[in-house]
Amino acid sequence: MTATLTGVGVGPGDPELITVRAVRILREADVVFVPVLDRPEGARAAGRAETTIAPYVPSERLRRLPFALDDRGGVTERRESAWNAAAQAVATAVDDGARTLAFATIGDPNVYSTFGYLAQSLRALRPAVAVHTVPGITAMQELAARSGVPLCEGREPLTLLPATAGLALFADAVAGPGTVVAYKGWRRHAELLAELRRQGRLSDAVLGSGLGLTGDRVGPAAEAGDDPPYLSTLLVPARRDRRGGKL
Amino acid sequence: MTATLTGVGVGPGDPELITVRAVRILREADVVFVPVLDRPEGARAAGRAETTIAPYVPSERLRRLPFALDDRGGVTERRESAWNAAAQAVATAVDDGARTLAFATIGDPNVYSTFGYLAQSLRALRPAVAVHTVPGITAMQELAARSGVPLCEGREPLTLLPATAGLALFADAVAGPGTVVAYKGWRRHAELLAELRRQGRLSDAVLGSGLGLTGDRVGPAAEAGDDPPYLSTLLVPARRDRRGGKL
Repeated sequence: MTATLTGVGVGPGDPELITVRAVRILREADVVFVPVLDRPEGARAAGRAETTIAPYVPSERLRRLPFALDDRGGVTERRESAWNAAAQAVATAVDDGARTLAFATIGDPNVYSTFGYLAQSLRALRPAVAVHTVPGITAMQELAARSGVPLCEGREPLTLLPATAGLALFADAVAGPGTVVAYKGWRRHAELLAELRRQGRLSDAVLGSGLGLTGDRVGPAAEAGDDPPYLSTLLVPARRDRRGGKL
Repeated sequence: MTATLTGVGVGPGDPELITVRAVRILREADVVFVPVLDRPEGARAAGRAETTIAPYVPSERLRRLPFALDDRGGVTERRESAWNAAAQAVATAVDDGARTLAFATIGDPNVYSTFGYLAQSLRALRPAVAVHTVPGITAMQELAARSGVPLCEGREPLTLLPATAGLALFADAVAGPGTVVAYKGWRRHAELLAELRRQGRLSDAVLGSGLGLTGDRVGPAAEAGDDPPYLSTLLVPARRDRRGGKL
């Protein structure tokens, strides 16, 4: 039997926002890997993926893989080492007899996820291992549901971008005809809000801070304060006038 | 007890790609509405939302609401009549004593969904009814999973647009630095492919035809033929060179 590694999206952090398929794959897996922040000092807390799937997977089948999730600025040596070590850990589990392996990742494994790099690294090491993914609910979908603001209607385009991609890209997208969602606006929060104010789009914008964490907050971006956490999601809806106006 | 209407995203059509929360809300609801294509000749087949939730909801709790889903070109009279009639049907169910009402919609209720128009119409009729949504897996996420092509990595923006928004918007998005997903490219399929060829982006593009339906097809867009069904999804990944190259 060929071994299979499945990247399983577990959604924004609420154990109820995981799909029936994801639950099945996690329950059937011989080993379930979860990413954990690699802290040089050694103290590793459970990550969000791990706490999200806790109701479904007994802890003895979980294995933590440390990643340099807090690195910035491209492919650092620490990041590459972590990808390689993670792929090696998966390969070793396969060599030890595991046939169904899963990797739980917050959100969706095909949306800004570490899983893609792990999958590429594993393909180089063990090309015979089949790689699959199971989609998961993203933070922008959770923010739309929690705030009551649709992501896109009719002919509106939707642009999703990380604030790390730069302010020019954000400003261009906001100047367009559609909805814009920015992830990880943490360090650029004041700049993003100033740009929205300049373009007359601040009043409709909503912010989700720390979505999926205890004490998360959803509300008008204009009232959100100046210091959102790292995992913030900013939703700027297209200009909408009447029911179905964008059809 | 206040009545609640919940727009429940049921994903791309596979009953396993529905969230645990969606299953719970559908099972607990007094009434579950499903959209059905309003055919003047009267013969109404079960819609995709209905077949997707069939394993979870007994048919006696289902009620079909006809919508003018096949209309094009803005807010037609037929569309407005359907929204109003659907909102009236929900209001009548509330008046008859239903307290938990759900509306099942393919994909996500906040992504190009009819649910938003129904919710607006109901608010005007019965402002006291609380409206919520439960997010669902979208077709683009399903296509990424099925094709093995990530939607976005690192700093790449992601643009989602309906082909009905026009070729200029599609061409602009493809010329940008990110990934582009086009929905409903059916009538414009040849134009979309010609634009991808012109910009040198056809070889990486993948197409999902009739995702979630029996006989759906996922593969390279260049090999897809000229006549995809109405519900087609085209994924044009950003240019990618090496592992983590977009970080």
